[in-house]
Amino acid sequence: MTKTAAIIGGGVIGGGWAARFLINGWDVVISDPDPEAERKINEVLKNARRSLPALSDVVVPKEGRLTFASSLAKAVKDADWIQESTPERLDIKHKVFAEIQKHCREDALIASSTSGFKPSELQQGAARPQQIFVAHPFNPVYLLPVIELVGNGGATARASKILEAIGMKPIIVQKEIDAHVADRLLEAVWREALWLIKDGICTTKELDDIMRFGFGLRWAQMGLFETYRIAGGEAGMKHFLEQFGPCLTWPWTKLMDVPEYNDELVDLIAGQSDEQSGMHSIRELERIRDDNLVTIMRGLKARNWGAGQVLNAQDAKVKPPLPGDLTKPLKTLERVIPIDWTDYNGHMNESRYGQVFSDAGDTVMAMIGADQAYIDTGLSYFTVDNHITFNNETHAGEAIHVHTQVLQAEGKKLRMYHEIIRTSDEALLATCNQLLVHVSLETRRSCVPGPEMTEKMKTLHDAQTKLPKPASMRD
Amino acid sequence: MTKTAAIIGGGVIGGGWAARFLINGWDVVISDPDPEAERKINEVLKNARRSLPALSDVVVPKEGRLTFASSLAKAVKDADWIQESTPERLDIKHKVFAEIQKHCREDALIASSTSGFKPSELQQGAARPQQIFVAHPFNPVYLLPVIELVGNGGATARASKILEAIGMKPIIVQKEIDAHVADRLLEAVWREALWLIKDGICTTKELDDIMRFGFGLRWAQMGLFETYRIAGGEAGMKHFLEQFGPCLTWPWTKLMDVPEYNDELVDLIAGQSDEQSGMHSIRELERIRDDNLVTIMRGLKARNWGAGQVLNAQDAKVKPPLPGDLTKPLKTLERVIPIDWTDYNGHMNESRYGQVFSDAGDTVMAMIGADQAYIDTGLSYFTVDNHITFNNETHAGEAIHVHTQVLQAEGKKLRMYHEIIRTSDEALLATCNQLLVHVSLETRRSCVPGPEMTEKMKTLHDAQTKLPKPASMRD
Repeated sequence: MTKTAAIIGGGVIGGGWAARFLINGWDVVISDPDPEAERKINEVLKNARRSLPALSDVVVPKEGRLTFASSLAKAVKDADWIQESTPERLDIKHKVFAEIQKHCREDALIASSTSGFKPSELQQGAARPQQIFVAHPFNPVYLLPVIELVGNGGATARASKILEAIGMKPIIVQKEIDAHVADRLLEAVWREALWLIKDGICTTKELDDIMRFGFGLRWAQMGLFETYRIAGGEAGMKHFLEQFGPCLTWPWTKLMDVPEYNDELVDLIAGQSDEQSGMHSIRELERIRDDNLVTIMRGLKARNWGAGQVLNAQDAKVKPPLPGDLTKPLKTLERVIPIDWTDYNGHMNESRYGQVFSDAGDTVMAMIGADQAYIDTGLSYFTVDNHITFNNETHAGEAIHVHTQVLQAEGKKLRMYHEIIRTSDEALLATCNQLLVHVSLETRRSCVPGPEMTEKMKTLHDAQTKLPKPASMRD
Repeated sequence: MTKTAAIIGGGVIGGGWAARFLINGWDVVISDPDPEAERKINEVLKNARRSLPALSDVVVPKEGRLTFASSLAKAVKDADWIQESTPERLDIKHKVFAEIQKHCREDALIASSTSGFKPSELQQGAARPQQIFVAHPFNPVYLLPVIELVGNGGATARASKILEAIGMKPIIVQKEIDAHVADRLLEAVWREALWLIKDGICTTKELDDIMRFGFGLRWAQMGLFETYRIAGGEAGMKHFLEQFGPCLTWPWTKLMDVPEYNDELVDLIAGQSDEQSGMHSIRELERIRDDNLVTIMRGLKARNWGAGQVLNAQDAKVKPPLPGDLTKPLKTLERVIPIDWTDYNGHMNESRYGQVFSDAGDTVMAMIGADQAYIDTGLSYFTVDNHITFNNETHAGEAIHVHTQVLQAEGKKLRMYHEIIRTSDEALLATCNQLLVHVSLETRRSCVPGPEMTEKMKTLHDAQTKLPKPASMRD
């Protein structure tokens, strides 16, 4: 049955949560007294819809239903998950939790997006304190996978499973502390950065460049400790600690002190920020950021590492079964065109059609048993000839699927004819007549597959070669 | 004339500098009394050679000559750039600088990799203080582009130009300060992180995951201030500051205090690090990190943003001219196969052959005037038919080039025959018979190009169609 998330407070963070749940097939109810809430949520959703599905290499679930409730009571009534993202004031949050608990199910999960408060603070005076915990996300919530979960074990364990199911990366924080983990690290950087700007050591742009051309690239794939472990070399982490331990007593940070927050500091930073980024509107910056994040995360997917590993695990969960009916053309692939497949002509680059055909061919290989486990035994198929026709353009965000007809599956040879079809209007986008040969990965030469695979190939061959020749096929 | 860099101190940092200079065509002389220096440098170079050229989409310069000097005096004698990467002790560095200045050219640049010392400290007692400045790199030096330059204006300005020429991103720090900019930010994170581990809030793995699945992804492409500018929304940076200004007085960081550095803390952290990363050797971790960094940076290249923009600028500098001699097959592409083009069979994926052919076709398009400026006017070429044969495998790190023969360049049609050739042994890797048609990007339909392009096409057509049919061509 479709589950329901109630989003209490519909700003950038609430909107990001709404998008995460909706695009993963949950129904979402929003409660926010702001008359602008609907517009704001829709803006976040617009960004999310163009980027989140682009992270997936399989077909994504059908989007859930979005509604706006006229009261908090109505919003939470049937909700499985209630996400509070109201302003960072404890008195407001206490009032909201009291109202939520008056109307919600007793088994509902009540999560707070708070970046600073401890669960014990949020729970003060609550009817059922154990129902309330922290699920702290990171902007943009629809793209960054990590969630800090803080609170009692029962609720956070249940929450963790749900977040994993919608493709997120929950981390349970072991003990509560002001600002959890990430915002403590961020606050440390922030305070030090304010000093550097205030003291005229560098500008906001120079500081940002030092991050994004340096350690920021490292931290997109390994964190602080794993990075430093490598810096320690073969001698390992102890060696690193011995080397850098002494710095702890050196004047390498001003954080024993806090810069005075005043108009002068605000003007200095806001002015430098305008000079650095003012040529882009916030909407443009959001798009640039999201396209960059999608690209980075998709890159890590190919390496099956970090955020990419989370995405691959999610794809595996929703991957459709292999085609079962061999008496018609096989649906070998179904997906959305990601942003990083587009070229200077504003459409999918010709090489990515090749990737779609390669992936469709993989499905047929898997049907005859040539899956990853088979490849690990030292046997595989190599493509030796492709004839591709490009019939229509396709663009980022469009859903496509591939129909494949096996033309020959005998001996070493596997010949297929693929059609890429746009799902919305069934337009033919491209065709490929593809010839693969079975090879030994040891000798890198062709060889005949074993009897088991030969048997599967015969079944496929016999069923598929009876079908009429595809209408689009010319040679 | 080939320039020479002297590398004083050949550890991981010195080795990284050596690789940067060598792979960008500089001669490099190493001076290090450690008998293991040659082995260590060669290990860094091995990593660098498999990853740095993979960042480039054009042919990279011929590697310079690497030598090991028997004395510091001999190493620095003719050097244009002298990079000091000795241990972080001021007395050692003072001795090294005195010896360098006794033997080096007066116009040589003397840069220190120090992560902590100020230039004024390094210069104490020097014969020519103004010659010495800080050029602080980040590990892995052969991949991360940023360099913090600190010191007198004349030397850092000259250094900046040289570093840009070898594809790096120098940032001149305006005022000297202990630990410059990055290591102050890193030290702040490090101190806070040590508290979090010591207090049992999280483990090293959990902290790393919170970074690499969260704000680390953000900082790989935008820094602290640009990211927060977006968080401020349309109201901008001032709004963000107003929202988070009050946190400055909250107990969100322990950095007013420093954790005691003792055996217990070292064992705690080293133990957790072993559990987190001990399944990989340091060499493996280096490879994983480098492949991830290459993938992330290549992704940003496609978006022409951040580190990717630096790489594109570097490619543009070393891009070969368009083929001039039309009376023979055209050399339309020359490059090394990057790591992210490899698939589960351990060789270049079939779709990437398509990308090579697409890029080779772009060169011919540019020859007839269909370059980016032309595309910006709303006209371009679309590929409508590709017949690809895959003749031999190719792997990451191999140099390839493409020979292209134009078969037809008339009216709307541009038909080419490409051969991908492995540079080392001239083996034929793949062929493509590619048909493009001239299109209007407005109507997305084919149309005849203007007289200027038609004229260029005719010249190309007449010269190329006289050539004999390529031997590998079957249809």
